[in-house]
Amino acid sequence: MRFISKTSSGGVTEQLFSLDEIPGVLWTPEDAHGSPGTRPLILMGHGGGQHKKAPGILARARRFAAEGGFAVAAIDVPNHGERPTDEEFDRIATEYRARRAAGEDTAAQDTAMYTLLAGRTVAEWQAVLTAVQRLDHIGGGPVGYWGVSLGCAFGIPFIAAEPRVRAAVLGLQGSPALAGAAARITVPVRFLVQWDDEQMPRAQSLALFDAIGSTEKTLHANPGKHGDLPRLEMDDSLRFFARTLQAATVYE
Amino acid sequence: MRFISKTSSGGVTEQLFSLDEIPGVLWTPEDAHGSPGTRPLILMGHGGGQHKKAPGILARARRFAAEGGFAVAAIDVPNHGERPTDEEFDRIATEYRARRAAGEDTAAQDTAMYTLLAGRTVAEWQAVLTAVQRLDHIGGGPVGYWGVSLGCAFGIPFIAAEPRVRAAVLGLQGSPALAGAAARITVPVRFLVQWDDEQMPRAQSLALFDAIGSTEKTLHANPGKHGDLPRLEMDDSLRFFARTLQAATVYE
Repeated sequence: MRFISKTSSGGVTEQLFSLDEIPGVLWTPEDAHGSPGTRPLILMGHGGGQHKKAPGILARARRFAAEGGFAVAAIDVPNHGERPTDEEFDRIATEYRARRAAGEDTAAQDTAMYTLLAGRTVAEWQAVLTAVQRLDHIGGGPVGYWGVSLGCAFGIPFIAAEPRVRAAVLGLQGSPALAGAAARITVPVRFLVQWDDEQMPRAQSLALFDAIGSTEKTLHANPGKHGDLPRLEMDDSLRFFARTLQAATVYE
Repeated sequence: MRFISKTSSGGVTEQLFSLDEIPGVLWTPEDAHGSPGTRPLILMGHGGGQHKKAPGILARARRFAAEGGFAVAAIDVPNHGERPTDEEFDRIATEYRARRAAGEDTAAQDTAMYTLLAGRTVAEWQAVLTAVQRLDHIGGGPVGYWGVSLGCAFGIPFIAAEPRVRAAVLGLQGSPALAGAAARITVPVRFLVQWDDEQMPRAQSLALFDAIGSTEKTLHANPGKHGDLPRLEMDDSLRFFARTLQAATVYE
């Protein structure tokens, strides 16, 4: 893990890093630096066509660090952000953008991206999690995952495979290809649905919530389109992670 | 409004009252007595076959008063609790109990109870609200309504008709007869769905959420049967009312 830059503002330190070919960013409360200990960590998976510092990721990450005391990490998943794209992905992404522009749903394209990239993305998230938890001021504390849309598609197999993840906020996703992995999830889940989502058919989203294996899972549905997640859900995610992750935290 | 008894425990004062033929109960923070002022008020509508001090009502009312500083009022709706029952209602209630015991849905019986009693119940809630807000230590502050199942069925036409109600927690209900009144609701709403509700068909519950006219409305769905609302939703309701009602409160 190689750190590239370090800046601080508003009580939050932001560090760009790379791990092999994976570009990432780590946010921590400013006062965490120089104080070794175990800190709860949230991994944030961006949506399709987005990247590790997309506005929605950045706003949540800074808030989770500043108000919740969490460490937060995001990466550019394959074919996104600073990373090179391959031909097959480009073909799917072109289709995805064309359908979105036409106001058509993109569930099939999400499934295609998922099928192409899930194995690689899950392995990368696992490597990043291991590397970040080796840092002195983070350590092996409880881990949460936040990811909607394509970030949910990659998050579901990651969480299903990864016992270190103890809680997740997911949603804006309904690909039937995810049902099998969803059934293997057992940790507390918030599943966000936009009631008027033009990209994900409502019935598919409800079916994916249904498929999640967790005893504690709550669906939160709000009016509005795919991109219109209300701010109140950001407040709720912060409280959800505070409850599910903080209780197990030991600050030294 | 005639007060019948007054007891205090755990920081909450409970007063039984009657208003004409309506039996009711009022909970207030113990320290509210003797301090005139404007206090946010939550009206709680019990479910079918329940009454003003059913365990679910009592637990929420005491918590809303003790932790949220709210005044809380509940009544026995017609044909429930201490009130006499009429023949037509008895017929529907017998059918309701038989179907529930057989594990069959009770949406049609809810609709029948609603049709029989809604007009009278709405008028009673309006009279109770007026009387309670005349009390020195409650006054004309913001008002919320909490009611699920039959409490939602009566709550929907009440909230639609009553501009004093500013926020509501509803749910466990999907009678299509409620869609018209639901469309006239404009205040913030939490709508609770039990994902495995054996009494309300899921599709009908989702359709009733869909029908609510409010810009701010959030569906919260949790696994479990009709009677299994998770405790976390009680925490959420308290925060929801604190946010939607307290901001406008003036304590003198």
